[in-house]
Amino acid sequence: MALRDDALEFHRKSRGKIAIISKVPCSTRKDLSLAYTPGVAEPCREIERDPGLVYDYTSKGNLVAVVTDGTAVLGLGDIGPAASMPVMEGKAILFKKFADVDAFPICIDSKDPSEIVEVTKRISVVFGGINLEDISAPRCFEIEDRLKRELDIPVFHDDQHGTAVVTGAALINGLKVVGKSFEEVRVVASGAGAAGVAVSKFLMSFGIEDLILCDSRGIVHPERSDLNASKMEMAKITNPEGKTGSLADGLKGADVFIGVSAPGIVTEEMVRSMAEDPIVFAMANPVPEIMPDLARKAGARVVATGRSDFPNQVNNVLGFPGIFRGALDVRAREINEEMKMAAARAIATLAEPISEDNIIPSPLNRRVVPKVAEAVARAALESGVARLEVDPAEVGRRAAERIGLLG
Amino acid sequence: MALRDDALEFHRKSRGKIAIISKVPCSTRKDLSLAYTPGVAEPCREIERDPGLVYDYTSKGNLVAVVTDGTAVLGLGDIGPAASMPVMEGKAILFKKFADVDAFPICIDSKDPSEIVEVTKRISVVFGGINLEDISAPRCFEIEDRLKRELDIPVFHDDQHGTAVVTGAALINGLKVVGKSFEEVRVVASGAGAAGVAVSKFLMSFGIEDLILCDSRGIVHPERSDLNASKMEMAKITNPEGKTGSLADGLKGADVFIGVSAPGIVTEEMVRSMAEDPIVFAMANPVPEIMPDLARKAGARVVATGRSDFPNQVNNVLGFPGIFRGALDVRAREINEEMKMAAARAIATLAEPISEDNIIPSPLNRRVVPKVAEAVARAALESGVARLEVDPAEVGRRAAERIGLLG
Repeated sequence: MALRDDALEFHRKSRGKIAIISKVPCSTRKDLSLAYTPGVAEPCREIERDPGLVYDYTSKGNLVAVVTDGTAVLGLGDIGPAASMPVMEGKAILFKKFADVDAFPICIDSKDPSEIVEVTKRISVVFGGINLEDISAPRCFEIEDRLKRELDIPVFHDDQHGTAVVTGAALINGLKVVGKSFEEVRVVASGAGAAGVAVSKFLMSFGIEDLILCDSRGIVHPERSDLNASKMEMAKITNPEGKTGSLADGLKGADVFIGVSAPGIVTEEMVRSMAEDPIVFAMANPVPEIMPDLARKAGARVVATGRSDFPNQVNNVLGFPGIFRGALDVRAREINEEMKMAAARAIATLAEPISEDNIIPSPLNRRVVPKVAEAVARAALESGVARLEVDPAEVGRRAAERIGLLG
Repeated sequence: MALRDDALEFHRKSRGKIAIISKVPCSTRKDLSLAYTPGVAEPCREIERDPGLVYDYTSKGNLVAVVTDGTAVLGLGDIGPAASMPVMEGKAILFKKFADVDAFPICIDSKDPSEIVEVTKRISVVFGGINLEDISAPRCFEIEDRLKRELDIPVFHDDQHGTAVVTGAALINGLKVVGKSFEEVRVVASGAGAAGVAVSKFLMSFGIEDLILCDSRGIVHPERSDLNASKMEMAKITNPEGKTGSLADGLKGADVFIGVSAPGIVTEEMVRSMAEDPIVFAMANPVPEIMPDLARKAGARVVATGRSDFPNQVNNVLGFPGIFRGALDVRAREINEEMKMAAARAIATLAEPISEDNIIPSPLNRRVVPKVAEAVARAALESGVARLEVDPAEVGRRAAERIGLLG
């Protein structure tokens, strides 16, 4: 109850969390004549003449829309666009705090994917990037796919790709601790929603060949008749041995468990059935698939959760702020696989020294964002999606300066 | 060229004019646990339970969308949504500077009124009010009408109603100077776009009975075959004597000229043909319908323009900030005629002492916004559109405090 009261008071006191300010002087008549009429006509004319100049004369290049329909908010489910607003405002202030990105909540009152795509496209003029948030699966896949195809600014569904990047970073180091490689391990992922699907695909990008995806009914395989389109696609590209059965069946002999699913669904016995030196990422929030102490007791060598009160917290705030910082600073047209992999590797390097209880840096480690921004910018440049030629080291330096200035 | 270079540099230096900041502390782990997970779930749950609480726990109540399609931007015309962004950002910082309203540009990439309505409705969850801006006539009328009907937050097209309110304020005092009443004067309005139509209707609310509207082809009357729907409506409710002919024909014997049209279209001779003690509001920007010195020379007793370098500047910034401040602070469902009239009267009282050269307060007069906010709040309460019972004097006091704090 203390948290509840504190949280309500925290939000009520200032009536929400974001404000919009001027970043230019606007006190004198002269200031106003430049910021508004008659001076403002000049940048308007310039942008009309050369649309690319919108990045020079407006705030677009540092503005990110946090777009939701409120259908999959935290663990609360489909609470609607209005009730989702505290989360979107929270995301906006994390963007600001961690990476000096100006983010604004766009809570869309529609559940129709086409309509959500249409609204987002029509207002995208204002933004340098789109962060999709808390949109339920499988609708989120269609929305993201279409927006990525139809817009020339980065579109990033954080629940998918942010989670995937930070999980990937943790697994890079987790595998180092146990001395195994991506190519040789067998991974079981639990949860076939937005996060589970994206994490699975992303880990396969790192070279994992043997990955089994489970949903609440067990192992996803092509013979099941209850799969939606995205699960069916996953059935085709995962589970090379064609296993069937329950999560427990899948875990037998597995090297890695990745949980983005439901509280308490993994037992000690299931961990004991895994291969030697098992890695257990039990990231359901707030209650993990198995509590860390039980997992360790059952032989897990490396355990990670989504919680700040245990070691190895897999927290998205390690990802999205630096990823957008880097993407925006080179005016990337998209956030591609190379950029996400670069981000994961950059995050992984900042857990030092690596140990069972230190496979991922702290979310409050201020070196993360500059490092991630630099890596993402470099990957964008190398993969040909950057529109602005900037030295990646300079992107990192400026990111550090920005958050240093923010204090 | 100096203004041009200064204005471009002004916009380029900071890459635009707005930033989004946190208005809550977010430095410590504790802060973040309240602003984001897990604490943020609490206000979400509360809003889901009782949707009205969105005003208590989010920024909605102080957020205004500055919505445009970029079709009628300043005097630049249809420059599109991207090129309009400097103006919308400028409007946002005026909202902030003058009334501590958090305003955000929504530049919509569509010219279809239905689509603009749809997009605005779908994202309106986030906002406490909608300020329509620089949308061409007659499309703006349809868009505004539909949004007003379909949304339960204030929708205000500033080019129409902001201009009308401030013009009304100026005319209240202008008529005092010449000792005439609204009921007895004959008014000729030039310009039948968004501003001209709205100003005409608004002045009729104040009791003007004999008003003639002119467009570029002369007097608007029902026999003309070239009128669009909004002009045809105006033809029916104006021009009681059924005059025809040119602007010059209309002005003969008129008491008041209201120009929101085109540079230099009024001659000295036309002013000389007006009634005794003529009032000339030549508000075309930047070049008025007739320059003030010429109008005075031709006998105009009171002259107003839109320019800051002449006396009696009719500037929208005297209206919209205080109008929205008052409407937001009582959570008005709309901005109705009573509220607009109250705003005009409040503005008029602040020109002291009234004289030929002082019929309207300076745009930099800091007493305007609190006074307007108070008057608008009172009118909202009295006309039954306020959802929050607040003492209007308290609204005024808080507005003064807010802008005092802003410095």
